[in-house]
Amino acid sequence: MSRRIPESTVRRLSHYLRSLEDLGTDEGQTVSSEELAQRGQTTAAQVRKDLSHFGSFGKRGLGYRVDELRIRLRQILGVDRTWRVALVGAGRIGSALFAYPDFNVRGYDVVAVFDNDPTKVGRRWGDVTIRDVRELETVIRDAGVELAILAVPGPAAQELAARAVKAGVKGILNFAPIRLRVPSHVPVEDVSLVMELEALSFAITQAQALDE
Amino acid sequence: MSRRIPESTVRRLSHYLRSLEDLGTDEGQTVSSEELAQRGQTTAAQVRKDLSHFGSFGKRGLGYRVDELRIRLRQILGVDRTWRVALVGAGRIGSALFAYPDFNVRGYDVVAVFDNDPTKVGRRWGDVTIRDVRELETVIRDAGVELAILAVPGPAAQELAARAVKAGVKGILNFAPIRLRVPSHVPVEDVSLVMELEALSFAITQAQALDE
Repeated sequence: MSRRIPESTVRRLSHYLRSLEDLGTDEGQTVSSEELAQRGQTTAAQVRKDLSHFGSFGKRGLGYRVDELRIRLRQILGVDRTWRVALVGAGRIGSALFAYPDFNVRGYDVVAVFDNDPTKVGRRWGDVTIRDVRELETVIRDAGVELAILAVPGPAAQELAARAVKAGVKGILNFAPIRLRVPSHVPVEDVSLVMELEALSFAITQAQALDE
Repeated sequence: MSRRIPESTVRRLSHYLRSLEDLGTDEGQTVSSEELAQRGQTTAAQVRKDLSHFGSFGKRGLGYRVDELRIRLRQILGVDRTWRVALVGAGRIGSALFAYPDFNVRGYDVVAVFDNDPTKVGRRWGDVTIRDVRELETVIRDAGVELAILAVPGPAAQELAARAVKAGVKGILNFAPIRLRVPSHVPVEDVSLVMELEALSFAITQAQALDE
């Protein structure tokens, strides 16, 4: 099923959930697909299509029950539970990520941090002690880590990803500027700042070419 | 034109360019769509389809000239030139971004940094002095900034985006967890770490539901 849902749909589901969370918690409160569309910057038809992948929601003319749709979207996105996360790499990006205030609120619980720098190993970040990356497998197994955030340089990333997966990690958020080779059942989300910037310069360049 | 090119295509173009840059610089060297596909983790048919949006490349049975395709992809992605970038927000995410080694190599030149914290304003980061965000418009105009990276908290982001666009910024890379409202000719790329994690937990949850 996950294969057939486009990534853009999943992003919009995240936006709909954000919108539903901003709405009140009055019992019986409803929201229309038009309202969800506006907040997610899409169309009402797209909202209905996105939600139709996951069953039947809402009633014609009455809209969606906010509380029900919120619960259902949390289930669909897998955020009705806590995920145990390991952060691999305690450099600048790693420390910025660790400080990110939304992770815990959203149920992503960073339970382990790794680095290979002996001056960092042993330091405490909040409740977590930075561990030597040589202990990766042991800690992942003992702590029941399910998601890994890879914030390491490109050359180190492939080996660490393979080791993390072998130790039981089920999904990877990858900040290293390489395409990881992992078994097909392990989803990988790449965050490449250069590629984001290239998407911007592409859009601007194409628009300028049209204007000429 | 940019409207009709899906974002997933643009991402693959970035990957093809990375692959071409990793290949040698021998004159006349060629690469097949199969090779580009493998490195970009897609199919040869997809490579040909992606490139066909932008004209005719390569010769049947001979593949693509590496040097020619590299130049053309740089033009298409708008990275055959330098972009002047402002970083708005000198907090943890901002400083991690500023230290990102690939920006300069790739032609994204951070020429201005802003913050509203008086203890940060006036500090030097490399060649750049952190400026008071009140000077946003003046500095953007004087420095000819074209791209803004917004690394500020959600409540501040909308106003700063509007001001940056009014001062001449043509595209925004947004790290704030909100959807920016900007004129339609200004492309925005959102980087939301929570949404990336939700895409992972979605994929894992859906795969597990299928297994049951």
